[in-house]
Amino acid sequence: MLSVTILGNNSAVPAFNRHPTSQVVSHDGNNYLVDCGEGTQIQMIKYKIRRGKISHIFISHLHGDHYFGLVGLLNTFGLLSHKQDLHVYGPAPLQQIIELQMGVAETILPYKLYFHTLTKGEELVNDEKIRISCFPTTHRIECYGFLFEEKEGKRKLLIEKVRKLNIPVSFYTSLQNGLDYITPRGQRINNDEVTSAPERGKKYAFCADTKYDENIIPYINGADLVYHETTYLDNMRDKALERFHATTKQAAEIARKANVRKLLIGHFSSKYSTLEQFEQEAREIFANTELAIEGNTYEAH
Amino acid sequence: MLSVTILGNNSAVPAFNRHPTSQVVSHDGNNYLVDCGEGTQIQMIKYKIRRGKISHIFISHLHGDHYFGLVGLLNTFGLLSHKQDLHVYGPAPLQQIIELQMGVAETILPYKLYFHTLTKGEELVNDEKIRISCFPTTHRIECYGFLFEEKEGKRKLLIEKVRKLNIPVSFYTSLQNGLDYITPRGQRINNDEVTSAPERGKKYAFCADTKYDENIIPYINGADLVYHETTYLDNMRDKALERFHATTKQAAEIARKANVRKLLIGHFSSKYSTLEQFEQEAREIFANTELAIEGNTYEAH
Repeated sequence: MLSVTILGNNSAVPAFNRHPTSQVVSHDGNNYLVDCGEGTQIQMIKYKIRRGKISHIFISHLHGDHYFGLVGLLNTFGLLSHKQDLHVYGPAPLQQIIELQMGVAETILPYKLYFHTLTKGEELVNDEKIRISCFPTTHRIECYGFLFEEKEGKRKLLIEKVRKLNIPVSFYTSLQNGLDYITPRGQRINNDEVTSAPERGKKYAFCADTKYDENIIPYINGADLVYHETTYLDNMRDKALERFHATTKQAAEIARKANVRKLLIGHFSSKYSTLEQFEQEAREIFANTELAIEGNTYEAH
Repeated sequence: MLSVTILGNNSAVPAFNRHPTSQVVSHDGNNYLVDCGEGTQIQMIKYKIRRGKISHIFISHLHGDHYFGLVGLLNTFGLLSHKQDLHVYGPAPLQQIIELQMGVAETILPYKLYFHTLTKGEELVNDEKIRISCFPTTHRIECYGFLFEEKEGKRKLLIEKVRKLNIPVSFYTSLQNGLDYITPRGQRINNDEVTSAPERGKKYAFCADTKYDENIIPYINGADLVYHETTYLDNMRDKALERFHATTKQAAEIARKANVRKLLIGHFSSKYSTLEQFEQEAREIFANTELAIEGNTYEAH
């Protein structure tokens, strides 16, 4: 299962118990942290996120509401005696910021911290379970979205047929991997007689901060779940453009044009005390829209 | 009234709904922020601190749990169109950290930000109402405590006598300032006949992070209220020394030797889920001890 849990759904100024951007993408026992606004580690405690499962942190851009919780979290990992390697991805100056802050504090981390500089559109992680890449968005400063693509799963056993043919349990994994079975008498049982096709891999895209820009569509096209910022309601298009942000209907328009299955909206301005109208406006353009609510988990399916 | 409101009473790792160090010293309509750990601006909202009243921020040292909320707060002031000058005091590298983070975000603040480098033991503010100075403490890195000394108030009118002598209301302020009154017939009324001595100015000392060190006593001697860290209970003296922190009984010993009126203890390690024992242990040495509890205000009197 590929899912995302929201830790912060507000824009720069925290308000109405909404916090700056952070979310945890979970897949197959791993947690990937996307952005780390101030207070992220406190939100992690509140929502019982297993910090020890985080090995990769992706920072979209260097506005503080997207990373001011990062160095505190890295310190906490250290104080909690985290041993596992930790990979941080972000725009180049983030490395200098981390090193300066760690340096003046004379901090020595008990784990290895690897910093990876983001450049436009590239693969960041590619293992047997997941591919993670970044793509540029159009914001006031250098900014990246992140695309999480689950690898196709294993083939599924048709368990009644498998049992009827007395295929030994020790061969089940081989069947799931697509191998044919040869019986003790030398008879070949074709894999597709006893398995069905795997589920297709799911896709989740985090579109960071961005003005309305159709250039992101090729990256997120056909995704199962897309998070797009809606800092403002749609009557604030001019303000949104001026500040390189998007409105409800602009986000929904991108989702519609990119043929995604579901849209998640967030990064709400602190000028709004309630969020119902965000949902209403976006749904006028793209019905399968949900508000990103802190503490909630949304599955890509 | 000179008082302090606690926004964060925990040490580096937030836990049990306790937050990293921050407190607001209030005096005569001004708020002075002392340290600004991650989440300070969120705590300010929770406890209804008037952010607009803050014109001075003092950062004791550059461990993240004492300043990772600072640049976010400076940004928020900007986004909320704060216009008043803001003065930040801290160890020298803090200026570089602020400038680097503001620079990469291309932030332009709508107010003037003045950075003042702390050096050992010096006067920071001295106006007609308050004197604020810093003093060195003994921590793993360069670290300062802050002393707030309220100026002596104005003389108090003995209102019945004042009225009986028909001194005009327009002269009351002059009486409070110590002037004698000359009647229309040329008779002198000595000030001390119609006023009483002003209340003495109160003193509050924040002792930052420090190991047990009697060298701070001359700075805090006779203070009405002293905050001293107690990261650990007293059975952890070795660990405290190794990490340049103090225990309950060590803090209380300092308070006793410095003849302070009241001791406030905080900066509790995240290893402790409850705080009763901190209070008990400190009171064995210095009875007038209170726990620094988030949201509570403690008056120097």
